[in-house]
Amino acid sequence: MPAASLVCFHSLISGAVEHRLMSRVKHWNRNCSLKISASLSDQSFQPAAKSLPITSKVETLLDSVKWDSKGLAVAIAQNVDTGAILMQGFANKEALAVTIASRKATFYSRSRSTLWTKGETSMNFINVHDIFLDCDHDSIIYLGKPVGPTCHTGAETCYYSSVYDLLGDQESIQDHLASTTLYSLEATISQRKDEIDSLKNGKSSWTKKLLLDNELLCSKVREEASELVETLLQNEDKTRTASEMADLIYHAMVLLKLKDVKMEEVLEVLRKRFSQSGIEEKSSRKRSSNQS
Amino acid sequence: MPAASLVCFHSLISGAVEHRLMSRVKHWNRNCSLKISASLSDQSFQPAAKSLPITSKVETLLDSVKWDSKGLAVAIAQNVDTGAILMQGFANKEALAVTIASRKATFYSRSRSTLWTKGETSMNFINVHDIFLDCDHDSIIYLGKPVGPTCHTGAETCYYSSVYDLLGDQESIQDHLASTTLYSLEATISQRKDEIDSLKNGKSSWTKKLLLDNELLCSKVREEASELVETLLQNEDKTRTASEMADLIYHAMVLLKLKDVKMEEVLEVLRKRFSQSGIEEKSSRKRSSNQS
Repeated sequence: MPAASLVCFHSLISGAVEHRLMSRVKHWNRNCSLKISASLSDQSFQPAAKSLPITSKVETLLDSVKWDSKGLAVAIAQNVDTGAILMQGFANKEALAVTIASRKATFYSRSRSTLWTKGETSMNFINVHDIFLDCDHDSIIYLGKPVGPTCHTGAETCYYSSVYDLLGDQESIQDHLASTTLYSLEATISQRKDEIDSLKNGKSSWTKKLLLDNELLCSKVREEASELVETLLQNEDKTRTASEMADLIYHAMVLLKLKDVKMEEVLEVLRKRFSQSGIEEKSSRKRSSNQS
Repeated sequence: MPAASLVCFHSLISGAVEHRLMSRVKHWNRNCSLKISASLSDQSFQPAAKSLPITSKVETLLDSVKWDSKGLAVAIAQNVDTGAILMQGFANKEALAVTIASRKATFYSRSRSTLWTKGETSMNFINVHDIFLDCDHDSIIYLGKPVGPTCHTGAETCYYSSVYDLLGDQESIQDHLASTTLYSLEATISQRKDEIDSLKNGKSSWTKKLLLDNELLCSKVREEASELVETLLQNEDKTRTASEMADLIYHAMVLLKLKDVKMEEVLEVLRKRFSQSGIEEKSSRKRSSNQS
């Protein structure tokens, strides 16, 4: 942990937990300095927020969490771009304090009775962008960006076993990540591309036709954009707008697959634009230069 | 619970937990029959999967979960379309069994020492599409579609308190849902629209210009689609593809706002298409009819 962050961290916490926390941070610092330097060099490490407030605010916040009889609350790490639930652990007061200050998702390991910063061994940190408490203040979300796969098995997330798959009749159960709609669609498109690449004779599909015919794909992307626009210009029903937007996203995602671009990369671009000077500002600049 | 589901449910579970489970389900059935009928009428209720397998498979699966010393595991409900974490509770063996069979997210209430199906009082069920176990089999995701807001406060999810907001210097803390990138962008666009509608003199922005000028917006959506297509045709760098796709999504989302369409509605269209006969099949039909 860089010296500046340590100072900031030190000013953040006081009272009963301070000594234990500082021991932990010093230990972490000793063991992880090289790793953090590496992390810093790729600019993925975010030091403790400079504007973090007076100590009493942090203590009040830590005290507002309804820790259970063992001093723990559930902590869920979620990918800030895709929404994927990466892993779930438990946090105690110290783990939450370290996460607030270091912006690295940190948990309390019940089996080893110690704090544990995800990535301290694997380097696969989860860089925390925000932290949320639920309505009862007994459940925590670490909303962050994972560096590499989160699961110790090498899987992207720890959730890859579907109960309905396990209860099904298949002879072999394949890993099947808990994916929401956009990423299920992305996986389906990838599967069609794999079938083409491996010359497998899967059944024919519209996605395969698009993947094999750039001219067709490009005309469809343009056409779907026009159809979306028409729903506004012609004041069509909003269900029509939703349908045309779905068509546009699907066809554009087939194009992304051909360019080997993941939707997560696109979302990262969007996040960086509107969390810095704002996508609005960026687009405005683009427009000005177009017009100049 | 409809009779057919009860039969299916009954065939699913046997052994020690059967009697307690059936009592629970009968109680639930008595109290909730009207609610379930209402739910069925909007076709959001999915009866227990018809193909669910022999009882021993379910028992083996329930036994494979690493229940803690109190017989519980963490259960997280997640929106299948947006990825939003809706709420977090705990499941015991019976809660998981009821969720598998009924496809309504069901938890064990530690405060009331009883099973609790989310929505049994509020009608705001979470219709479960899939259930995932983590690598250690001690954490569960109920991946589902919420009917109405999930939180008892009326908020969309239970996570609306940002730790960094609470630690900040603002005098009044506004609720701030734990949103991932796409939905943060959607919220920003909504905010700009609200500023226009309320005649507030916020600072000028590109989004506001687009919201006030349909012709400009429509030309931008078409232009961004063309620029995305060019990255394929001209074999441009993949970072360019990601950037153009980000531009296209942003401008198309401004159009969605003008039509009062949420990205969640678009994703629901996509999910229904590719989980039924497949978006590929649908698009293929559309193309055939276009060409005929």
